[in-house]
Amino acid sequence: MKVPRGFRFGAVNAGVKSPESTRLDMGLIVCSVPAEAVAVFTRNQVKAAPVQIGMRQAKLGKVRAVLANSGNANACTGEQGVDDARRLMRALADNLGISLEEVFPMSTGVIGVRLPVERMLGKVAGLVDTLGDDPQCFVESIMTTDTFAKTAYRQVGDASVFGLAKGAGMIAPNMATMLAIVLTDACLNRVELDGAVRGCLEKTFNAITVDGDTSTNDTLLALASNRANTDKPSIILAIQEVMQELAIKVVSDGEGATKLITITVTGARSDADAASVARSVADSLLVKTALFGQDPNWGRIMCAIGNSGVPVDEQAVAITIGGLPFVSNGREAPGFDEGQGHAMLKPREIAIDIDLGLGDGVFRVWTTDMSYKYVEINAAYRT
Amino acid sequence: MKVPRGFRFGAVNAGVKSPESTRLDMGLIVCSVPAEAVAVFTRNQVKAAPVQIGMRQAKLGKVRAVLANSGNANACTGEQGVDDARRLMRALADNLGISLEEVFPMSTGVIGVRLPVERMLGKVAGLVDTLGDDPQCFVESIMTTDTFAKTAYRQVGDASVFGLAKGAGMIAPNMATMLAIVLTDACLNRVELDGAVRGCLEKTFNAITVDGDTSTNDTLLALASNRANTDKPSIILAIQEVMQELAIKVVSDGEGATKLITITVTGARSDADAASVARSVADSLLVKTALFGQDPNWGRIMCAIGNSGVPVDEQAVAITIGGLPFVSNGREAPGFDEGQGHAMLKPREIAIDIDLGLGDGVFRVWTTDMSYKYVEINAAYRT
Repeated sequence: MKVPRGFRFGAVNAGVKSPESTRLDMGLIVCSVPAEAVAVFTRNQVKAAPVQIGMRQAKLGKVRAVLANSGNANACTGEQGVDDARRLMRALADNLGISLEEVFPMSTGVIGVRLPVERMLGKVAGLVDTLGDDPQCFVESIMTTDTFAKTAYRQVGDASVFGLAKGAGMIAPNMATMLAIVLTDACLNRVELDGAVRGCLEKTFNAITVDGDTSTNDTLLALASNRANTDKPSIILAIQEVMQELAIKVVSDGEGATKLITITVTGARSDADAASVARSVADSLLVKTALFGQDPNWGRIMCAIGNSGVPVDEQAVAITIGGLPFVSNGREAPGFDEGQGHAMLKPREIAIDIDLGLGDGVFRVWTTDMSYKYVEINAAYRT
Repeated sequence: MKVPRGFRFGAVNAGVKSPESTRLDMGLIVCSVPAEAVAVFTRNQVKAAPVQIGMRQAKLGKVRAVLANSGNANACTGEQGVDDARRLMRALADNLGISLEEVFPMSTGVIGVRLPVERMLGKVAGLVDTLGDDPQCFVESIMTTDTFAKTAYRQVGDASVFGLAKGAGMIAPNMATMLAIVLTDACLNRVELDGAVRGCLEKTFNAITVDGDTSTNDTLLALASNRANTDKPSIILAIQEVMQELAIKVVSDGEGATKLITITVTGARSDADAASVARSVADSLLVKTALFGQDPNWGRIMCAIGNSGVPVDEQAVAITIGGLPFVSNGREAPGFDEGQGHAMLKPREIAIDIDLGLGDGVFRVWTTDMSYKYVEINAAYRT
């Protein structure tokens, strides 16, 4: 892997969650030039302080440094939270000799608790000292309940695209609880970068769901350092492939998930209808628990289809799982065998294909099953 | 308890789920006169055969007999399912000497499997033989994962109202997975009965949620036998009280629930806004798992408020739980103590009060926490 030129990475332990914690929890990315920047944010009405600040910074369109932390979301912290974030950004900007407006903040973790600003301020100089070429330390510094680091990489001629993400719970359409950063050294202006990101957002990060919750902190940031000339359509495709790979990695690390489920709806009257049906099935707890139990209970899928709010013709619905017909004409498929159906639900990756038989609308979402472990992780998050 | 005059009840085991099953699974209510009838049905687009038939019957406005079964929803069974239900209704009508159109069908259970019609037909005469004054056998015959029988009763002068319901999972706004029957011997015409039911539907059965799933079979049926003259406003109030009591009993039997949560939203710009916020909080898995874990993680409630789609002013939000302030002005309430907060989450019944600080809109919903047990029940439903 050749990390895009112009970017360096660092991370330290700053005791964000508690003074006793020893893990990396404050990370830094620095770009050698002001990078073209595009950002997309949570649609949650309650926005964390770094999101409020980041939304303003993103309008300026240039970013020199990303300052991120895990262990504390700096959300529901009012004006104090904004002040805290800006103090950290100011200290970093002064250390790097850049302006405050060129620092982009990101936080993830517990909501409603002030950042330990003094402790974190004391670590800023040390954080800058850790800067180097390997992004792994940064990726680790933003992980929370993630069980593995999520990165993706593509090379296009002389240029490359490197993406990283954190996220495992609170994963819902309209951005997951998720921080994601896509870096490229390709020459792209802001309009081109924006087009690349928004052109696939709906089909990548907005097409994954674990538990239907959209967080206060979701942020996707794309940066281009304009160091390598390359074929633009190819680099745009590479950015989109990296976004899709990251999105699928985020959902496959869904809290407590034992399965990665791909739900493809075809035959809808529109793509929007297909998306509503796909999301209704993906978010149904009864479907998700049946998949965890490997119970070929297709009736729950029919029920979730009927719950989407989209007008459907029950008699036109066909469902296959792993290629095996479960439902045709809205009823159990001829020759369907319970044992074979059960066998189709055993693999870790399962493809559910739903044909509504009404038109040409198509949409695909990725989700997980729902296990005891999800409840365990989320019932005991802070204790 | 004085059961409303004019109604008799019966139940048998008809081996609906399997020939080996011995529990009561086919029930009957017979009215000595054609009762005034009002019914409300699931809004799921996929409607079970008994719902399709019941919707037609309800328009006729008179019911003499209710034929119900558990163990099989007769949903996603196509025209065959409608034929099967009608054969059973025909056999019952012939036995009772009434018309097919006076029989109201209800089913609950697994989706997508044909009713064992021949076996059930063989039990119809025996079912009629069991008719008597005690409704308990009927209540038991429609239970599925319910852990207790849900009934409610009010007496108003000479008249009475008796209600019964089944339901424990797939409980969502717009009717739970739920069969509910409200019987009265008061003199009410159909318009009055309809007004009584619809006048409180939004605030009772449509204000409960366990898992956000609306089933294929949800049906509420109200019958008036017109045998007792009584004060109409009082009897209407009694009907509404019975509906509310049944709704709360259904949600408090939510699958795997360890807590009954009442969420009251005030200060919204409208009642509809208040309802959206209340439901967003009630359906958030992160809130529900935190309540199960007795974790006073109020940030998840703020996050769910922000996810409702309703414009809110974060700085105006106040949250109290069990009367203890958790949040004021969108931030941790002054003097909030984690240990006290934890203590407020220990009781089985918890009241969460959310003031949005924007207007006079109010709404209340009832819900449950989310436990390991819910996953267990629903992962292993059929195996």
